[in-house]
Amino acid sequence: MAFTPLHDRVLVRRLEGEEKTAGGLIIPDSAKEKPSEGEIVAVGAGARDDDGDRIAMDVKAGDKILFGKWSGTEIKLDGEDLLIMKESDILGIIA
Amino acid sequence: MAFTPLHDRVLVRRLEGEEKTAGGLIIPDSAKEKPSEGEIVAVGAGARDDDGDRIAMDVKAGDKILFGKWSGTEIKLDGEDLLIMKESDILGIIA
Amino acid sequence: MAFTPLHDRVLVRRLEGEEKTAGGLIIPDSAKEKPSEGEIVAVGAGARDDDGDRIAMDVKAGDKILFGKWSGTEIKLDGEDLLIMKESDILGIIA
Amino acid sequence: MAFTPLHDRVLVRRLEGEEKTAGGLIIPDSAKEKPSEGEIVAVGAGARDDDGDRIAMDVKAGDKILFGKWSGTEIKLDGEDLLIMKESDILGIIA
Amino acid sequence: MAFTPLHDRVLVRRLEGEEKTAGGLIIPDSAKEKPSEGEIVAVGAGARDDDGDRIAMDVKAGDKILFGKWSGTEIKLDGEDLLIMKESDILGIIA
Amino acid sequence: MAFTPLHDRVLVRRLEGEEKTAGGLIIPDSAKEKPSEGEIVAVGAGARDDDGDRIAMDVKAGDKILFGKWSGTEIKLDGEDLLIMKESDILGIIA
Amino acid sequence: MAFTPLHDRVLVRRLEGEEKTAGGLIIPDSAKEKPSEGEIVAVGAGARDDDGDRIAMDVKAGDKILFGKWSGTEIKLDGEDLLIMKESDILGIIA
Repeated sequence: MAFTPLHDRVLVRRLEGEEKTAGGLIIPDSAKEKPSEGEIVAVGAGARDDDGDRIAMDVKAGDKILFGKWSGTEIKLDGEDLLIMKESDILGIIA
Repeated sequence: MAFTPLHDRVLVRRLEGEEKTAGGLIIPDSAKEKPSEGEIVAVGAGARDDDGDRIAMDVKAGDKILFGKWSGTEIKLDGEDLLIMKESDILGIIA
Repeated sequence: MAFTPLHDRVLVRRLEGEEKTAGGLIIPDSAKEKPSEGEIVAVGAGARDDDGDRIAMDVKAGDKILFGKWSGTEIKLDGEDLLIMKESDILGIIA
Repeated sequence: MAFTPLHDRVLVRRLEGEEKTAGGLIIPDSAKEKPSEGEIVAVGAGARDDDGDRIAMDVKAGDKILFGKWSGTEIKLDGEDLLIMKESDILGIIA
Repeated sequence: MAFTPLHDRVLVRRLEGEEKTAGGLIIPDSAKEKPSEGEIVAVGAGARDDDGDRIAMDVKAGDKILFGKWSGTEIKLDGEDLLIMKESDILGIIA
Repeated sequence: MAFTPLHDRVLVRRLEGEEKTAGGLIIPDSAKEKPSEGEIVAVGAGARDDDGDRIAMDVKAGDKILFGKWSGTEIKLDGEDLLIMKESDILGIIA
Repeated sequence: MAFTPLHDRVLVRRLEGEEKTAGGLIIPDSAKEKPSEGEIVAVGAGARDDDGDRIAMDVKAGDKILFGKWSGTEIKLDGEDLLIMKESDILGIIA
């Protein structure tokens, strides 16, 4: 079952295990909102600018991203827990 | 009786039964707002950009969509319960 | 006595009797805000876009519409109760 | 003493007596905000669009209008009570 | 000591005595915010539109204006009490 | 140590002593927010308009300005107390 | 592990030690929000203007900046505490 996010939304798989990877990105234990790591599964066609033209998305399927821990809406697709969020909720791309 | 949504609104038939379909989309049992599945029945002509030109709709009648559970206004049309919502309330298209 | 709504406003006659019409639109008995049915009596010349140009109205006098129950300002014109609302308060057109 | 409203403002003379005119506009006795009838005394040169160009006013001196009862700022000019309001506070023109 | 207001600001001298002038503008004694009369002392070069171009000011030094009683910031310049406000705080020009 | 404000920000040296200068600008003793006098130390390259073009700054280093007493963020640069504020926080230029 | 901030975001290394450097920038001990010093580690490709075009970033990797103490989201990258913030959170560049 394929899911295509609308406008500037992306479908994200949360990478829980990465939080404990040594030498990589580790979420600090503080009271502040903590960003999470994820992988882009699918992207929308992009929002539209003031002239109604599409704005190209800056992320693509396969990108590993960092996003605010409470960003997005949880869905279960083919039994898998995924997140739908807006591109603007993404903090950056990990390479 | 036909109903044509105005501007960037869409008319949606909620697909309640799909919540229990195996191997498909299952709404998780959590405290977060849960998205619902639906089918587009009719679409408006589109909103207008800053120059007053129409912005084409990204969904069409027949599309199966995911939307926020509390999105839209309930109406009963020819005895059927339907929803009117804005295109921006749609999370994405299921194919 | 004629009344011409300003900008993107419309003058609407509420169609109360339609709420009970069989086979047509019936407002559901729920706690949610219920849309009402009405008929467009007069329309404004339209709002203006960012360049100051008129945006054509999507409804015209005679259109049967659905609108949010609490939309608009009540006025009495030649003894008749009417409503003035913005075009954006209209959910769609019934045909 | 002449008063020229600035930008998209208008100077309005409230027509109190009209509230009781038979066969004309009668303000309903309800708890909702009631519109008032008035006459345009003077209009500003118009607001400016995003390019800084003037947007022509849709009302002119002499127009009989309907406006929200609590709209505008009261002033006394040459002993007469008048109101200064924005064109967007005007609901429509009575002819 | 000269003072040049920035952007769309104006420097205003409050005309207190005018409140009691017979046959002219008299501020009504009500609980509503009362406009005050003033004279433009200096004007800024104007705000900028969305393209960064200047928007010409609609008032000039010497204009007698009406403004909301609580508008502006009080300053003392060469011993005189003056007000700095935005052009949009001005209700209109008295001639 | 040089500091270059970003975008439409300016670096300001507060001129406390000027408050007591005879024949010049004196801050009135009232309960209202009082403007302060200052001198521009450095200016940013300017904000960008809707097309992404720079908007030229209206103040330059050396200008004596008036600004809202509570405007800006305090910093200490090379032992001197300075303020960083946005150009829009400046009320006008004293000459 | 490389991290590329999205849009107009930047990755910043907080320079804690600089707060005590003699002859340089010292954060004052007051109740007001205090700016912090940092170094740009990586910058995004830039936000987009109303036409969907990129707006070039005004900071680059290596720039020493001043930013509001509570700006940004804390992340740990390869064991190092870093901050992700928007370019608009940066007060200016220290040179």
